[in-house]
Amino acid sequence: MKIYADSQSGNCYKVKLLTSLLAIEHEWINIDILANETLTASFLEKNPNGKIPLLELDDGRFLSESNAIINYLATDSLLIPNNSFDVAKIQQWQFFEQYSHEPFIAVARFIAKYLGLPADRKADYEAKQAGGHKALKVMEGQLQKTPYLVGNDLTTADISLYGYTHVAHEGGFDLSEYPAIQQWINNIQALPNYVSMES
Amino acid sequence: MKIYADSQSGNCYKVKLLTSLLAIEHEWINIDILANETLTASFLEKNPNGKIPLLELDDGRFLSESNAIINYLATDSLLIPNNSFDVAKIQQWQFFEQYSHEPFIAVARFIAKYLGLPADRKADYEAKQAGGHKALKVMEGQLQKTPYLVGNDLTTADISLYGYTHVAHEGGFDLSEYPAIQQWINNIQALPNYVSMES
Repeated sequence: MKIYADSQSGNCYKVKLLTSLLAIEHEWINIDILANETLTASFLEKNPNGKIPLLELDDGRFLSESNAIINYLATDSLLIPNNSFDVAKIQQWQFFEQYSHEPFIAVARFIAKYLGLPADRKADYEAKQAGGHKALKVMEGQLQKTPYLVGNDLTTADISLYGYTHVAHEGGFDLSEYPAIQQWINNIQALPNYVSMES
Repeated sequence: MKIYADSQSGNCYKVKLLTSLLAIEHEWINIDILANETLTASFLEKNPNGKIPLLELDDGRFLSESNAIINYLATDSLLIPNNSFDVAKIQQWQFFEQYSHEPFIAVARFIAKYLGLPADRKADYEAKQAGGHKALKVMEGQLQKTPYLVGNDLTTADISLYGYTHVAHEGGFDLSEYPAIQQWINNIQALPNYVSMES
């Protein structure tokens, strides 16, 4: 299988981390978002929504959306519980990630780290802070109760939320206010076959 | 089971439509978003993210996020295919809905229909149009190839996307440009046990 991705993107890093944890062989094809490589005619034929990460199976079928990709790749692994309520809870956290977490934390990080916090985006950057902290508080509340988001065991929900949470400081979010999130980050970084975003 | 929801919300309507199509008995508890009823202490205890729809099982467990709820309620029904790739494709469309469709089409509709398109939101409303049409084009492309989003059969992905697509005109999106989407809307409205948003 092929994975079209950019390792600086947290959404792509979710797939990189998952494939490493589960030792899934694949070909990694670098796509440069900032150079608009997701918007070429040949890429849009693969994913009409023009986004990475994108998975291509050996039979030529494509799957997009980071959370759908990692859930698919983790099918039948220990990262997906075998009861329908916990599977739904994974999805609950992943939809939360895409709607209530990523648009604040990942976008603030993008403005600061990749755009260099230009003056005309400063208001936008600051407007992202409240929503980001709200999302972190929701995570902290759960992680005060259970070591991982869906309970006692690591699931793909943790991989999804870890993607941008562990680099939230690059978007201006001070994680020292969130001790349970810090412990959870430490637990994930201690997993066998863990890979960092930069590696 | 109890469903906390507001029937004017497309996200809540997905759950209403799904429970009707599958004849799932439940108690519907109206929550008024505009009156901030999702932000009371008692509601935040049920869902710390302060959003509806919210499902409460008879044993007291809670599940939030519309797409996670409908996938859970449709477990073992004909609306969920029994192969992992198609299940992942459902999720692909649902994550697309939450990130690339709802923030444009639902938000434009909210500004126009519920806020009455006030002068200070006009620029925001107009800024949503390009993203909304981009999402509709992605859907149209798929529905030109297959009658439903994941193939020949209705899945929960269709329920998810139908929620805000069929009322997109209320956000200023002219669906007459999208004949395959119109046919798909007609197919869904012809389903046994279909209920409208207003009913």
